[in-house]
Amino acid sequence: MKIGVVGFGYWGPNLVRNFQSAPSVEGVVCYDASDKRLAIAKQKFPGLEVAKTYEELLARKDVEAIAIATPVSTHYPLGMKALQAGKHLLLEKPMAESVEQCRQLIEVAEKNKLVLMVDHTFVYTGAVRKIKELVENGRLGEIMYFDSVRVNLGLFQHDTNVVWDLAPHDLSIMDYIIGLEPTGVSAIGSTHFSDKEDVAYISVRYANQLLAHFHVNWMSPVKVRKILIGGSKLMVVYDDMEPSEKIRVYDKGVDIKERESIYKVLVEYRTGDMWAPKIDLNEALSLMVKDFAEAIKSGRRPTTDGRSGMKVVKILEAAQASLRQNGAMISLVP
Amino acid sequence: MKIGVVGFGYWGPNLVRNFQSAPSVEGVVCYDASDKRLAIAKQKFPGLEVAKTYEELLARKDVEAIAIATPVSTHYPLGMKALQAGKHLLLEKPMAESVEQCRQLIEVAEKNKLVLMVDHTFVYTGAVRKIKELVENGRLGEIMYFDSVRVNLGLFQHDTNVVWDLAPHDLSIMDYIIGLEPTGVSAIGSTHFSDKEDVAYISVRYANQLLAHFHVNWMSPVKVRKILIGGSKLMVVYDDMEPSEKIRVYDKGVDIKERESIYKVLVEYRTGDMWAPKIDLNEALSLMVKDFAEAIKSGRRPTTDGRSGMKVVKILEAAQASLRQNGAMISLVP
Amino acid sequence: MKIGVVGFGYWGPNLVRNFQSAPSVEGVVCYDASDKRLAIAKQKFPGLEVAKTYEELLARKDVEAIAIATPVSTHYPLGMKALQAGKHLLLEKPMAESVEQCRQLIEVAEKNKLVLMVDHTFVYTGAVRKIKELVENGRLGEIMYFDSVRVNLGLFQHDTNVVWDLAPHDLSIMDYIIGLEPTGVSAIGSTHFSDKEDVAYISVRYANQLLAHFHVNWMSPVKVRKILIGGSKLMVVYDDMEPSEKIRVYDKGVDIKERESIYKVLVEYRTGDMWAPKIDLNEALSLMVKDFAEAIKSGRRPTTDGRSGMKVVKILEAAQASLRQNGAMISLVP
Amino acid sequence: MKIGVVGFGYWGPNLVRNFQSAPSVEGVVCYDASDKRLAIAKQKFPGLEVAKTYEELLARKDVEAIAIATPVSTHYPLGMKALQAGKHLLLEKPMAESVEQCRQLIEVAEKNKLVLMVDHTFVYTGAVRKIKELVENGRLGEIMYFDSVRVNLGLFQHDTNVVWDLAPHDLSIMDYIIGLEPTGVSAIGSTHFSDKEDVAYISVRYANQLLAHFHVNWMSPVKVRKILIGGSKLMVVYDDMEPSEKIRVYDKGVDIKERESIYKVLVEYRTGDMWAPKIDLNEALSLMVKDFAEAIKSGRRPTTDGRSGMKVVKILEAAQASLRQNGAMISLVP
Repeated sequence: MKIGVVGFGYWGPNLVRNFQSAPSVEGVVCYDASDKRLAIAKQKFPGLEVAKTYEELLARKDVEAIAIATPVSTHYPLGMKALQAGKHLLLEKPMAESVEQCRQLIEVAEKNKLVLMVDHTFVYTGAVRKIKELVENGRLGEIMYFDSVRVNLGLFQHDTNVVWDLAPHDLSIMDYIIGLEPTGVSAIGSTHFSDKEDVAYISVRYANQLLAHFHVNWMSPVKVRKILIGGSKLMVVYDDMEPSEKIRVYDKGVDIKERESIYKVLVEYRTGDMWAPKIDLNEALSLMVKDFAEAIKSGRRPTTDGRSGMKVVKILEAAQASLRQNGAMISLVP
Repeated sequence: MKIGVVGFGYWGPNLVRNFQSAPSVEGVVCYDASDKRLAIAKQKFPGLEVAKTYEELLARKDVEAIAIATPVSTHYPLGMKALQAGKHLLLEKPMAESVEQCRQLIEVAEKNKLVLMVDHTFVYTGAVRKIKELVENGRLGEIMYFDSVRVNLGLFQHDTNVVWDLAPHDLSIMDYIIGLEPTGVSAIGSTHFSDKEDVAYISVRYANQLLAHFHVNWMSPVKVRKILIGGSKLMVVYDDMEPSEKIRVYDKGVDIKERESIYKVLVEYRTGDMWAPKIDLNEALSLMVKDFAEAIKSGRRPTTDGRSGMKVVKILEAAQASLRQNGAMISLVP
Repeated sequence: MKIGVVGFGYWGPNLVRNFQSAPSVEGVVCYDASDKRLAIAKQKFPGLEVAKTYEELLARKDVEAIAIATPVSTHYPLGMKALQAGKHLLLEKPMAESVEQCRQLIEVAEKNKLVLMVDHTFVYTGAVRKIKELVENGRLGEIMYFDSVRVNLGLFQHDTNVVWDLAPHDLSIMDYIIGLEPTGVSAIGSTHFSDKEDVAYISVRYANQLLAHFHVNWMSPVKVRKILIGGSKLMVVYDDMEPSEKIRVYDKGVDIKERESIYKVLVEYRTGDMWAPKIDLNEALSLMVKDFAEAIKSGRRPTTDGRSGMKVVKILEAAQASLRQNGAMISLVP
Repeated sequence: MKIGVVGFGYWGPNLVRNFQSAPSVEGVVCYDASDKRLAIAKQKFPGLEVAKTYEELLARKDVEAIAIATPVSTHYPLGMKALQAGKHLLLEKPMAESVEQCRQLIEVAEKNKLVLMVDHTFVYTGAVRKIKELVENGRLGEIMYFDSVRVNLGLFQHDTNVVWDLAPHDLSIMDYIIGLEPTGVSAIGSTHFSDKEDVAYISVRYANQLLAHFHVNWMSPVKVRKILIGGSKLMVVYDDMEPSEKIRVYDKGVDIKERESIYKVLVEYRTGDMWAPKIDLNEALSLMVKDFAEAIKSGRRPTTDGRSGMKVVKILEAAQASLRQNGAMISLVP
């Protein structure tokens, strides 16, 4: 199996490198609209094949799958062509510009029995998989809140705002860990240099009292990548800037001692040990690439499949609508 | 001049201690509804006088001013009686339960030419005054955002939610530093143990694109007290958990290099030195107490006067309304 | 039982406060050579008795024990008088100026069946007791090294150097945790403002390859209080500047995979979880005071008795000798 | 000019990469005793030439300079051959196994008018150059102490101890910043797995009261790379683990207020702002490589020339002697 990688910009080189060293991948064929970038690609990756047009790439029989690392506005047209040409498809995040585009891509992929995957790389990190494990085996208890901060200086994007740029990472982590269907989204933002929001806050509600919140900011003097998860039994701080102890699990919480009524509750604080479980530090991207390759081989769904990609876009779309309505809560309940 | 301190619970002892060592204060007279607490007060503070009833306290001629450190629901009735008895008045934060209560207190104080002050202690910290100085002398440039996080485990309050409990600190800091009139407030929260929100997010909008945001949480495994301020020239991180370098000023930002239109802007990142200015580490409470005493003496307004206290309550009241409307933006424009 | 506290300077007030609230102590009688300080003591602690001379204090029948918080040069003469007057004795750290002084104090105390204790407060902290527990139950394995850093700006002492001022804390912690007899001491220092060392490094050797090392410095721009302990099974970082998670235990180490000879060893690294055990945050001083009172009552030895105090002085004395000999190793083996 | 790189192990690939992108270098020819490693080198670096023997490499006319990245025991024989063949020479740190070897290499290089350089990469970091600048323009004042900690878990070396492995980095930084001739060295260490020290402490004395100290440890659960420099005017903390603010400069210190005699000094503490100057984050290795190339071209000395490499080996040699004599001070004064 060979993989076609489309787009050799910021992320493309990482895909090429990982596909080249994936066991079941025999070769990588790269396409980029810019000849200059294609030349750079060939120089940087000896053994890399290139295609002169997207059509040429799709026409190749030995290329079974296409990975698309181009601006989001092109995900749908390029992806749809790939699926229609019978290629398995990996899309960079976010999956597409709208839920409707996602829906159509999923439909065609299912009809043609093709793997459709979105590269939500963070879901494949050892840190996120460890949190998922703690949630799944019930150790965290019921999740009460999910609070995420992803801020730093730059990189300003011209074709998108900070919500579509940064939030997909944390929304995909949240979706993977929580696994429930959100009921509503609200977002507030502010613009300072163009008509695109450079700072924004997104709230996501679930049917129970679980509240998720996301702070994304392109103008912070300090780089923060931190998620706080409050479970009824344990609480987790996931700090991606920590070099090794990325996850800290706190045996802390509030226990209800006496509850006369909803108006009168006596709580007790519980504070025990903290521990930082050892986490797998393998490159997440190589695991994602492996999941894609194995899904193609075996026919099973990859972890971050089209449906999980669409769930992220659904929240982004609602957040965008809320931004335009000054923070109004947008219902996600059909 | 003697000061009457009402309420010897969590904060009262701090007021007694600071008033006792204030230069212009001759003595402190304490009143608490609980005889047991009054007895503790006398034991802890030798030389402290006590009053058996609030009326007895107000009737004393030598008591010129009253400081009230009781639950917020009693601020208005107790405070109004003090003003009507001709006493200068210091109220703990938040000032009262509603803007209307604040308005009436201000009216009576002004009519009777009495000092009316709210104990927004943080405004008197060296850290906050240093930030104010940087803003006032223009070094920060135009403020683009103000982001505050105040989270920890407990203390759950029975008569109030996390917004009324924790946000007054940061709202008063914001009001002091920014000084403008907010135009709208929205708040989203969640309840897990009673009918009071234990986690909440508040957004405050201003006429320009300045956006302020507050994260308050009673259920965080880690204690965070951090404010991020993005100015067009400098950016500030104020971390109150740092023992000495509470403020870090970053010469970082985004400069517009070329602006063809609002849709096409070329920005350039600027990263220079960071510095932590030396800040006054005197106890803020003693400065607040001094400001109160001097305001009484000289007839000038204290920094955190009734009007600034009312501005905080105005935002709290709007946040409460927004919480009930699932985050709808509540306009503050008349 | 009443306790006589001698010296109301930096540490004396802490002793008075803790003795006053100790259950088995009926009263505290204070003596200080300065009338002014005695007056401050009376004002600060209502109910405190005072003695006009040290002799008056020793003559009191109701005073069963004496606690001495004066400069180290006076520990021996004042302490000896107390023991000779039949009083139990608590000495501030370091116990005395020389091993010989310590020996004599121990001798008299044992002869008169009096409790002799040294206030090595850190030994009573929850953090140090937790480490001791991990060592005692074998979880750390064999200790390979003990590395301590205690540096900050000031307070310069006039009558002593940085070794005698700061190292007693860490030497007492080491002695408590390791419990073995050191075999040699070497120390190197430097003087910049007077003839007293303001920065110094002390090495302590044990019979096996266990090496302890202490960095003490009065001129550091940052305050560090950190101990690293390398066990063959677990490793510990004790950071006393951390507000809550003072101890971190690392499941990290080196395992010998193959050992052909001492010249050819194949090692393997082991890295597992880190955890921060919950530690008792009760004030260490109150536990020390309690240990003293209970030792008097029951006749048992307190944890930091005269012998443990003498072991610390033995190292200090050897370190001082080594400083004078430019770091020569001073043997402690008889 | 082409460069011959000898040794394609841990560090060799970094040299190849940097030489390949250095402006004045036309090509890189690699030699490694292992054919397997040479094959890897060719695969990894397209365009790389290889030599089958060291003699073949030295015989090439187009190769003007040799960079040696092999175990330290081979530096002298390989390096001497290169110099004798008329090649400029870059040696990895430490320069050689003894001062005598260094002396001979310097002699031959000078006689043959060849550049002789040692790759003390840290000297080329923005952080170290910034500290040097602060020292040179007198802002730090007189340096009182230099304290370095470089500890982590592994990598155990079979042919050397932790002193020869880790200390060269910090010794070269110290030599570059301080620039004086040390007068004595003492070192204490401990062995736990083989006959090589895995933890050690090195003290370096200078003619005045300047004291330098180095803690190196292969068995620390946490990775620390920190240097503390106490100047009479400013103090510096250089933390290489910090992602961006690697240097913090503290306006802190001790001022002598009154000095009656060396026995009676009244000091005053000075605490002002802290600042983190922006530092150049360019890869140090590329600057080192550039310095080497320019030194060859222009005939000037590189910053880390043979003499500075020999000064580091002089201290290592003395430290080794001191280790064998249980910490005895080894004089460096002729």
